[in-house]
Amino acid sequence: MDQNENLELMIISMVGLPARGKSYLSKKMARYLNWVGLKSKVFNIGMYRRSMVGVNCNSTFFDQENQEAVKARENCCFEAMNDIITFLTSSEGGQIAILDGTNTRVKRRRMVEQYFMEKMTKKYTLIWVESICNIQSIIENNILKTKLKSQDYNGWESDSAINDFRNRIKEYEKVYETMSVQNDGENSTYIQIINQNSQIVMRNLKGYLPSKLLSYLINLHTGERPIYFTRHGESEHNTKHLIGGDSSLSQLGRKYAERLKEFCEEESKTFSKYTEKCVVYCSTLKRTIETSEYLKFLGSRSSIKALDEINTGICDGLTYQEVQQKYPKDFEERNKDKLRYRYPRGESYLDMIQRIEPIIFELERHNGPVIVVGHQGILRCLYGYFSLAPIEEIPVIDFPLNTLIKFVPEAYGFTEERFNFDPESGKVTKITSGQKYKDDLIHTPLLEMKKNDSFY
Amino acid sequence: MDQNENLELMIISMVGLPARGKSYLSKKMARYLNWVGLKSKVFNIGMYRRSMVGVNCNSTFFDQENQEAVKARENCCFEAMNDIITFLTSSEGGQIAILDGTNTRVKRRRMVEQYFMEKMTKKYTLIWVESICNIQSIIENNILKTKLKSQDYNGWESDSAINDFRNRIKEYEKVYETMSVQNDGENSTYIQIINQNSQIVMRNLKGYLPSKLLSYLINLHTGERPIYFTRHGESEHNTKHLIGGDSSLSQLGRKYAERLKEFCEEESKTFSKYTEKCVVYCSTLKRTIETSEYLKFLGSRSSIKALDEINTGICDGLTYQEVQQKYPKDFEERNKDKLRYRYPRGESYLDMIQRIEPIIFELERHNGPVIVVGHQGILRCLYGYFSLAPIEEIPVIDFPLNTLIKFVPEAYGFTEERFNFDPESGKVTKITSGQKYKDDLIHTPLLEMKKNDSFY
Repeated sequence: MDQNENLELMIISMVGLPARGKSYLSKKMARYLNWVGLKSKVFNIGMYRRSMVGVNCNSTFFDQENQEAVKARENCCFEAMNDIITFLTSSEGGQIAILDGTNTRVKRRRMVEQYFMEKMTKKYTLIWVESICNIQSIIENNILKTKLKSQDYNGWESDSAINDFRNRIKEYEKVYETMSVQNDGENSTYIQIINQNSQIVMRNLKGYLPSKLLSYLINLHTGERPIYFTRHGESEHNTKHLIGGDSSLSQLGRKYAERLKEFCEEESKTFSKYTEKCVVYCSTLKRTIETSEYLKFLGSRSSIKALDEINTGICDGLTYQEVQQKYPKDFEERNKDKLRYRYPRGESYLDMIQRIEPIIFELERHNGPVIVVGHQGILRCLYGYFSLAPIEEIPVIDFPLNTLIKFVPEAYGFTEERFNFDPESGKVTKITSGQKYKDDLIHTPLLEMKKNDSFY
Repeated sequence: MDQNENLELMIISMVGLPARGKSYLSKKMARYLNWVGLKSKVFNIGMYRRSMVGVNCNSTFFDQENQEAVKARENCCFEAMNDIITFLTSSEGGQIAILDGTNTRVKRRRMVEQYFMEKMTKKYTLIWVESICNIQSIIENNILKTKLKSQDYNGWESDSAINDFRNRIKEYEKVYETMSVQNDGENSTYIQIINQNSQIVMRNLKGYLPSKLLSYLINLHTGERPIYFTRHGESEHNTKHLIGGDSSLSQLGRKYAERLKEFCEEESKTFSKYTEKCVVYCSTLKRTIETSEYLKFLGSRSSIKALDEINTGICDGLTYQEVQQKYPKDFEERNKDKLRYRYPRGESYLDMIQRIEPIIFELERHNGPVIVVGHQGILRCLYGYFSLAPIEEIPVIDFPLNTLIKFVPEAYGFTEERFNFDPESGKVTKITSGQKYKDDLIHTPLLEMKKNDSFY
């Protein structure tokens, strides 16, 4: 719904022990929110610490008895909060800020609430999101996969780094107070995510956006599975450079579908290892249905209206040249702002993003291979979400015909392979990944490093 | 998403003490699910009890020590479960069954699970939904508003009925075991709704539909507020009987908008009593935007793409007569099945229902007055949801121009007033509510009454 303009500002503040996936969740939320057009950023307290007191803090820095360190860590939090306030109230136009820190003590949480209450000059909502995990294998995996790569352990020998990190967790565990009515009061607003979505608790969550966020969060998982994106084979309309329409595949288009089938036959040999079965999605337009028919050997196929190509309204069936001649003003407006430009009686890219949100939720949720046989516009929106493309870039993402993208989302990033098919010869060219977007979901603290030797 | 065909069958089984809103939640879920096209029914164990052992059971019937009564109540549950199995596996084509009972004991819950596991011949998922409430005023209100009207207390003096019902609750409280990992195991799948959504817990909820259901449930509340539905004023296209288009208001249309404004000025005098502010929604088409401009004195207005009229594709701008001449086959198909008929390159009513689901969630969530300035097709879908219209009836709901419906959803039903405006004279005619739909969300047990005097 187009309610962004009336939207209250929001601060999401994380809670949880180290290695509980707080940064993963922060980044996921920021990705989703930016994709739906809400300017959002993560403010990671660890990055402020590294910037302010330097890297290589060993676990003694996290000892609650170490008064000087406690003070230093509090200062990092203040700096992050100040930057959040600037982000939300300045001309930067931020709408949602995520404070990514441990906030494991009640005292700290009250301090954070108090600070924003005093300093924020605009109306806002604060929501706590706590990640709880007591499955040791997940925690260990998280330490190995992410924490060892942290700047904190640059140059450390891996065993001692692991040990130090385990000690750091222990320091936090000593004083950890989980979120609850007892600890945080009747009126506290929070979401608790327990053991990777096996249990979720939400308290006092109200409003349009918080309930959307919750729906998003319950669909997330870190299971690995490939998502394949491809456009339909060449259509009759494509050969004539006509916009929109509902034409069938050209002869070349059918050849591509045949190549796609051969390729997927190979790929599907590994599909049995995934938790859920492979599903094939296409739109309700002939060119994707005809292409996906070649994939029916894979089983479940769904033709989904929400995957239809952008509705070009009165421009449907024209060439771009004809649009320029018949509707010069529209042609110009579209060139100026392809994201927001709405075809008369048709859609904009922003409209499409809203329309395919349920597909994103479903692609996040499904824990098995998915093949999306789509259209250029719709694939730009879907792929743009996963590849971290800034929203302004989405309408110009390169998505040629005869190309398949194999995309594997990972906890902190993704891997991608592109395959270009020559429909005639069947030659497959593997292309090293295309455009990589700068990951600007996380705010970089602009602070002078105040190195303090007493912490080493 | 169009996944209904691949959908697993689902059994939702309620848990909770009497007067905790289980029947309210059951009916709401059944309403939502039927509206999105999933055949769903509530099987209320109380109704089986009244049918099997008669009405006028006093609280001693609910004493756990009363072995004969315990047995009789268990039999009611078996009958309900048998009917559920028939509903889900027979040609009736049921997709989701809701077992509306207390199920407050662990033993009973395991028995229910076991029974379905043994008897169901098709694959299904079972989800428990527990409603917990410990706010005395809500419980008392529930007893007064709903339980006293129950057949159980037909002819009782109200004070003794209340006392008896309180005693019935006490009998249940003695043996109540809430859902938890300790009581129901690591793998139990449940949603707990605590104190009317102030807290929600979900455990092991997976899959497309369960996560949609949860999103729906977190938006529900029983706060009273009016929802106003009106079409735009007459448009230029209306005067020429053309389908679709994006024309402006006619002179008469502007007069209606003026009348609407006067009426809403009066109505708005009471708006300050609601928890949330009044919002006005319109589509992105000129005729609703122009109409809603007369309501800008109310404050927040949103122009929402999802509220646009049904996309009539290639028939846009034609009259129905022209459609019949140009596309006789389409004209015929549409007459045969208006719900599923999709205009070539356009939409069906089912497509519209999917598209406006977020609006339903938002109308449920918002706890203040809402004015929807819409179109005939889209209002049929919205109003059809609230008025309990069977999905097949939605495309033929009567929604004339120059009419405003004031709709107030209540916990168990709704009130509705219709106002017809003569745009020229300003005369307002209040119409007593139109079509009332038979409420067939709840299964009526077809059992012979086995009156047993020992229970009186």
